Amino acid sequence: MTEEKGVPIFGVILAGGLGTRFWPLSRSQYPKQVLRLLGSESMLQATIERLLPLIPAGRMAIVTNASQAEVIRLQLYHKGWEDIQLWLEPQGRNTAAAVGLAAVLLGKEAGDCLMAVFPADHFIRDQESLLAALNRGAAWAQKGYLVTFGIPPTRPETGYGYIKQGAPLDEEGAVYRSERFMEKPALLQAQAFLKEGGYYWNSGIFLFRRQVLLEAFRRHLPELYQGLGRLLTEESCLPLEEVYKNLPSISLDHGILEKAANVAVVPVEMGWNDVGTWGALPDIFPRDARGNVILGRALDRGSRDCIIYAQDRLVATIGLEGTIVVDTPDATLVCQRDRVQEVKDLVAELHRQEMVESEQHPTVERPWGCYTVMDEGTGYKVKQIVVEPGKKLSHQVHQHRAEHWVVVQGTARVTIGLETKPVATNQSVYIPPKTPHRLENPGPESLRLIEIQTGTYLDEDDIVRLEDDYWRVS
Amino acid sequence: MTEEKGVPIFGVILAGGLGTRFWPLSRSQYPKQVLRLLGSESMLQATIERLLPLIPAGRMAIVTNASQAEVIRLQLYHKGWEDIQLWLEPQGRNTAAAVGLAAVLLGKEAGDCLMAVFPADHFIRDQESLLAALNRGAAWAQKGYLVTFGIPPTRPETGYGYIKQGAPLDEEGAVYRSERFMEKPALLQAQAFLKEGGYYWNSGIFLFRRQVLLEAFRRHLPELYQGLGRLLTEESCLPLEEVYKNLPSISLDHGILEKAANVAVVPVEMGWNDVGTWGALPDIFPRDARGNVILGRALDRGSRDCIIYAQDRLVATIGLEGTIVVDTPDATLVCQRDRVQEVKDLVAELHRQEMVESEQHPTVERPWGCYTVMDEGTGYKVKQIVVEPGKKLSHQVHQHRAEHWVVVQGTARVTIGLETKPVATNQSVYIPPKTPHRLENPGPESLRLIEIQTGTYLDEDDIVRLEDDYWRVS
Repeated sequence: MTEEKGVPIFGVILAGGLGTRFWPLSRSQYPKQVLRLLGSESMLQATIERLLPLIPAGRMAIVTNASQAEVIRLQLYHKGWEDIQLWLEPQGRNTAAAVGLAAVLLGKEAGDCLMAVFPADHFIRDQESLLAALNRGAAWAQKGYLVTFGIPPTRPETGYGYIKQGAPLDEEGAVYRSERFMEKPALLQAQAFLKEGGYYWNSGIFLFRRQVLLEAFRRHLPELYQGLGRLLTEESCLPLEEVYKNLPSISLDHGILEKAANVAVVPVEMGWNDVGTWGALPDIFPRDARGNVILGRALDRGSRDCIIYAQDRLVATIGLEGTIVVDTPDATLVCQRDRVQEVKDLVAELHRQEMVESEQHPTVERPWGCYTVMDEGTGYKVKQIVVEPGKKLSHQVHQHRAEHWVVVQGTARVTIGLETKPVATNQSVYIPPKTPHRLENPGPESLRLIEIQTGTYLDEDDIVRLEDDYWRVS
Repeated sequence: MTEEKGVPIFGVILAGGLGTRFWPLSRSQYPKQVLRLLGSESMLQATIERLLPLIPAGRMAIVTNASQAEVIRLQLYHKGWEDIQLWLEPQGRNTAAAVGLAAVLLGKEAGDCLMAVFPADHFIRDQESLLAALNRGAAWAQKGYLVTFGIPPTRPETGYGYIKQGAPLDEEGAVYRSERFMEKPALLQAQAFLKEGGYYWNSGIFLFRRQVLLEAFRRHLPELYQGLGRLLTEESCLPLEEVYKNLPSISLDHGILEKAANVAVVPVEMGWNDVGTWGALPDIFPRDARGNVILGRALDRGSRDCIIYAQDRLVATIGLEGTIVVDTPDATLVCQRDRVQEVKDLVAELHRQEMVESEQHPTVERPWGCYTVMDEGTGYKVKQIVVEPGKKLSHQVHQHRAEHWVVVQGTARVTIGLETKPVATNQSVYIPPKTPHRLENPGPESLRLIEIQTGTYLDEDDIVRLEDDYWRVS
């Protein structure tokens, strides 16, 4: 570790959220942080992108749930960010455990470095202000403060935590001591905060020295400190699963920042939005003359203050007021805006009823392209498969299913058993069960084919990968 | 013609409606009267079914638009009602022309018979009351009255025409002279009608002697009378297209019943509903405790007075009030109930924009089963095809497209060129362009296959039928 002013910062991105509030666009296997909700990049990708001028990929790590590793790895792959480490929690244990885990895992390599913690699923319009604030905060983190970043509130929001500023730490009024940390307040209280002034929304971004954080854990969350410590001790090196089972589930705010004396706050206006529900979209997207945000193939007559998200199919709306309509290929949500908080309860109900629409989309991304399940019934499944130019699926075998491939765009190179041959548009091949096979797009354009699977067992886990261009053969 | 009391009645069913008000369930190629909205039978089939005890199929005719002939013929075929005549108007010219055409075409066979006219797309819960009322009315139609059937109003509806009763024609008060015929009134007027009493909703059902009707046409709609008369005159027998071009477009109510002196009304309570818009469903279907009608795979949290129609996919709703949600495989409608009249305007807009969702459904019924378009793109189309047991597609040729068939359920019998062979589940065949072929399901269960079409022209009209089990080879 260097002691100079421009000390390197390690970025820790917390990407464990389930994002049930963005159902039906988010699914348990496709959570909010990987959604391309706000543009061509996912929220996670945008989070990383905006930090790169300050923190190179090689000094970033993502802490996430093991069940989300595949989709996150894919998003890093698509951006060429394989340098970013992926630290997998065996189960979600809230932010204190996630940040604690990062501090522990970082330690072996980075000593007493600066750690910056970022949620993976927030929107920040103004990158420069963010980076400037981080630079301001870094100096105070070096001096031993747990530095938070506060957003000047613009409304008496009851869904956020608030930070009350204390004495200024510098002369410019760019950094303050934090006098108090408050969880989501009641409306009257939030209104009083705005009136009084000197309160900020807690952005969920933190910056501190690793040793200062560990010391805070030791003092304020000893159980968690000791639990995670057992990952470090050479002689008793416990598997992560064992350690996590017994960790307390508490947020960093509750567990540390509400209790610690050495907390600072850097106020920063940066077009921040936590994009907590569908209701956040009108703060981010342009509205039409009647206050509607309309995205996709939608036709409206006279609705007001609505959010219409049409992913694929035609959505027609007439005379709605304050309604959210989200249409995806297999599920539709229609919800009054003032009850958008209940989307998560609805998703919980879908989980209870084991409805597949809570778990995944018909279209699934892969490192080589994507597939869409178009139809399934007893004994068969139909997929559309798109292989990007130059990409290859793994060399694989299915025990139970046969596959028919009909090429409809491009020319494939197909290996079946020992034979490799081109399969052009309007040609088909048959792959019997238990037969090693491989599909490749050697051409310069996307390859599109229709796959018809037949057999009595058609789940995705009937696959043995013999060889893979990606990370999927261990 | 017999003069006895039980004189035969000819049934004329008016099925020319476009049913744009039930979009997205109705489409221009799948209008309201063929929808299975209220049960396993379409509205047209239910209309015929409930008349059969009084009017056998051989004495019924359907007047409809030529563009709807195929789908209506299919529905008659499915019920074994090929005896019912189908009289095709070259274009819609409102009900006076349709009833006039029926009177003309009926004449050649039936002389001065009784004609009963029925809309094809109304709901009548109580069949016995309908048949009893028709029997009551028949006696007065015989005596020269234009007999209408009036529904005692239960609310000041402004969407219906009203009939005011005059002097009673019998002692039981079962038939009255009609004093006045009124088109859709303003609300205040409708309220006054209900308060005053003796007013009925016009059910759109009529009964009269053919000669009495023709005489009324001659007096009140001479232009229409003369126009249609030219279909009868042997020497100047004009094609229907020529005649229709110049016919006035006017309703039977406006053109005849508002003007004629010999109009009678038979009051009848029979659970009648004209099912004019989605808003009619709560009058027909049971409502839940919060006043919602929820049909299909829908999950609701706390909505009130809503109509949720989920045809296929999952629809989730939260906290809606008086909202109509209709979800179909390729289009979704979300509309406030008080603006449901605007659905037809929306559909007009879709037509203007030439959106395919105004015209047809992805699933199309055929006499042998059905197909569903699952995917289409440049140079290809994917269909799921279901052939019912024992059924056969036509022996056909496509000039432009090739087809790959993969059987996923059942065993097909396939003819390609001169060869006929069985194709079992998990087998596939290829049909090159310009090759005569035929598909048959010889088995006792449904046959399901995936068809992948390739080629540069993939429209349905690329078909030459060499032979057909149905009516599709002329």
